[in-house]
Amino acid sequence: MATIGRPAARTATRTRITALDTHDIRFPTSRRLHGSDASHPDPDYSAAYVIVRTDAGDDLEGHGFCFTIGRGNEVEVAAIDALRPLLVGAELPALPAGLADVYRGLVDDGQLRWLGPEKGVTHMAVAAVMNALWDLTAKRAGKPLWKLLSDMAPEELVALTDFRYLSDALTPDDALRILRRAAPGKAGREARLRAEGYPAYLTSCGWLGYDDDRLARTSRAAVADGFTQIKLKVGASPADDIRRCRIAREAIGPDIRLALDANQRWEVGEAVERTRALARFDPYWIEEPTSPDEIIGLAAIRRAVAPVKVAAGEHTANRVIFKQLLQAGALDVLQLDACRVGGVNENLAILLLAAEFGVPVWPHAGGVGLCELVRHLAMFDYVAVSGTWRDRAVEYADHLHEHFLDPAIVTGGRYRVPTAPGFSSALRPEALQAYAYPDGEAWV
Amino acid sequence: MATIGRPAARTATRTRITALDTHDIRFPTSRRLHGSDASHPDPDYSAAYVIVRTDAGDDLEGHGFCFTIGRGNEVEVAAIDALRPLLVGAELPALPAGLADVYRGLVDDGQLRWLGPEKGVTHMAVAAVMNALWDLTAKRAGKPLWKLLSDMAPEELVALTDFRYLSDALTPDDALRILRRAAPGKAGREARLRAEGYPAYLTSCGWLGYDDDRLARTSRAAVADGFTQIKLKVGASPADDIRRCRIAREAIGPDIRLALDANQRWEVGEAVERTRALARFDPYWIEEPTSPDEIIGLAAIRRAVAPVKVAAGEHTANRVIFKQLLQAGALDVLQLDACRVGGVNENLAILLLAAEFGVPVWPHAGGVGLCELVRHLAMFDYVAVSGTWRDRAVEYADHLHEHFLDPAIVTGGRYRVPTAPGFSSALRPEALQAYAYPDGEAWV
Repeated sequence: MATIGRPAARTATRTRITALDTHDIRFPTSRRLHGSDASHPDPDYSAAYVIVRTDAGDDLEGHGFCFTIGRGNEVEVAAIDALRPLLVGAELPALPAGLADVYRGLVDDGQLRWLGPEKGVTHMAVAAVMNALWDLTAKRAGKPLWKLLSDMAPEELVALTDFRYLSDALTPDDALRILRRAAPGKAGREARLRAEGYPAYLTSCGWLGYDDDRLARTSRAAVADGFTQIKLKVGASPADDIRRCRIAREAIGPDIRLALDANQRWEVGEAVERTRALARFDPYWIEEPTSPDEIIGLAAIRRAVAPVKVAAGEHTANRVIFKQLLQAGALDVLQLDACRVGGVNENLAILLLAAEFGVPVWPHAGGVGLCELVRHLAMFDYVAVSGTWRDRAVEYADHLHEHFLDPAIVTGGRYRVPTAPGFSSALRPEALQAYAYPDGEAWV
Repeated sequence: MATIGRPAARTATRTRITALDTHDIRFPTSRRLHGSDASHPDPDYSAAYVIVRTDAGDDLEGHGFCFTIGRGNEVEVAAIDALRPLLVGAELPALPAGLADVYRGLVDDGQLRWLGPEKGVTHMAVAAVMNALWDLTAKRAGKPLWKLLSDMAPEELVALTDFRYLSDALTPDDALRILRRAAPGKAGREARLRAEGYPAYLTSCGWLGYDDDRLARTSRAAVADGFTQIKLKVGASPADDIRRCRIAREAIGPDIRLALDANQRWEVGEAVERTRALARFDPYWIEEPTSPDEIIGLAAIRRAVAPVKVAAGEHTANRVIFKQLLQAGALDVLQLDACRVGGVNENLAILLLAAEFGVPVWPHAGGVGLCELVRHLAMFDYVAVSGTWRDRAVEYADHLHEHFLDPAIVTGGRYRVPTAPGFSSALRPEALQAYAYPDGEAWV
């Protein structure tokens, strides 16, 4: 098996990866139906978690993870473990530029790629490792990830972007044009971002397992907290959807945006009917109305349900599917995820694709740690890629932030700017211990 | 966690699944570059293997597997292990009808589905388990799988087919129409199949790692053995592709079909150029010219390279992608796989989709055990679905058949009809021992 970079003894300028440790971390969220939706009735928010160490002697570690919802988290951990021989003992490349090669080496391993390629368990494992390496890179640079990326020259960013299979929609030259267009206003937008924060919308009021009283109460509270958009899970029975939409709309009034999320429950034709039946509640979008692998059908749904928008992306396997969703005109709202595609290098491509097609990015968050991660990507997009936050916001769910060293903070309906060096991906050591599955105290 | 079916004590008529044992089986094929291609230079053909046992007291076991190419086979085994709690202890449903519910239960588990859904490692694990349950079902019926399926009424087959997310292209009524149209000629086609065998084409002459002499020698031998089509791996350097195509074409003469396989190496525009550069060698098809997730780009390639056909499917994640490939007009040749999608229930849908769109199915085989499995699906298709083998054949590669209890037999360029009850999925016990990774004698 080839390792990425050459195995090398440590020298004054070169360091090696010495350890890649994995942890199966699970939070028993199903006990209170947090996160419940039409396809996932009882999630236990979980993280297949990885810590990368080097012999640099600087005590800096890279922390990363991918998000799962319980059973199978051990499979994800096994997939991260399968990447260990490619990395441990390998020379750490010049950061951040070398991360392009590391990423491509992980994705293109001539045997492991059979298990995807670039989708599902193995691709999420690449995400966890790359998130950890980007965390380490940002810590070494002494900057939060969003700032590290925002300070890079367009040429540096292009060199780090995964353009493979995108040439019929986005070339490196296209990307340079986008990034150069955004360059002049960067300093002003950064200042505004630090002052105002980035827009957020709230999901955690509308889980499918919450009863009507709780739905009404939490929806009203969201508005009081300054959110201008909330999201509601639908896709159960038609009568339940109508009743819950009515409750939510009455709770928030006519001026707050109401997004609906069907979590993949419907056939193409059914999605059109069911969305139209809810149109009277003025939904801003319908999210994941059908299979996450649907491109052609999603475009048909979008044409049929307008002016209700169509949103998708949290289960989109990779940039190749995102490219086609954009080419087909299937999306009004692109919901990238920090942990499902192959990490930052692939998300650079997805942000650039969205900018090229003029489709706003509303990152998927919630779960465990997703809010912590994706705020960095959205803030970088605002400062250095799309250059706007108009009709954009990052999802927020108010669960599990207390377990992170650098937690997402949302006040007045806006994500505050993270300032600590890194990708905000590190769980507190006591959480790593208490929620270790199956032996941590939360599970015994 | 819900088990599939109710846990139940054994009664006179009901049996339970008592064990689901997994094995990590790997063959060191990379030592001789068998199976080498432009994306997979050194595969070690492997099986994440599963044996299902029940308390029926009939000593029948279900054997199944999914195919990988080495590293990561342990991740696939972990994914099969993750399905064990859903099955062991559960009542075995009435066979074969109950397999529809078992399949749906495995695919839709509310936590595990996050890791796909329906793609990659977790979906291949479902394939392994479902293959094993279909093997058991066919053994109980005392028939080879192709015959078990061919003898079913259209209504029975429709009840076993996974139609989810297909309603905009294929409904149960469409499927009934297709199956009823084929019904009158079934007996005649079965007799012809038993007499003549099913057409095969040969891949194992053209691996990318074979030198020119070996390529010429094995190509000539293929023709002498009665094959009317061979396949060659391309996608390395343009000069190598041209040289190898010339050697193969000269070896086989003008009347034997030459298929080319690029194994995902190219961008969309590049695929068009590279295929056109090889058109002088009269290739029958170009296979996997770009990403296996490409639908829109593959349709563009197909339009641009005609009359060279476009083939794909061995890495197509599920029936939803196949549906769209057909809707977009991206395929001339549909190469289903027995182990990448969720097993027989999903492949029923794929065969029916192909029949609905009038696209011929040429199953992907080779690897370890794929020839053994897919011949059943192709023979069933001939007898009871498409009703034709015109311009169709099953891939054949002459590796590792000796390790199976009911090996694929190809003579005179045709697959002979398997007659043993089951899905031909069982490895010999001595192979399970010798090729166990990492402790079998082949590896120590």
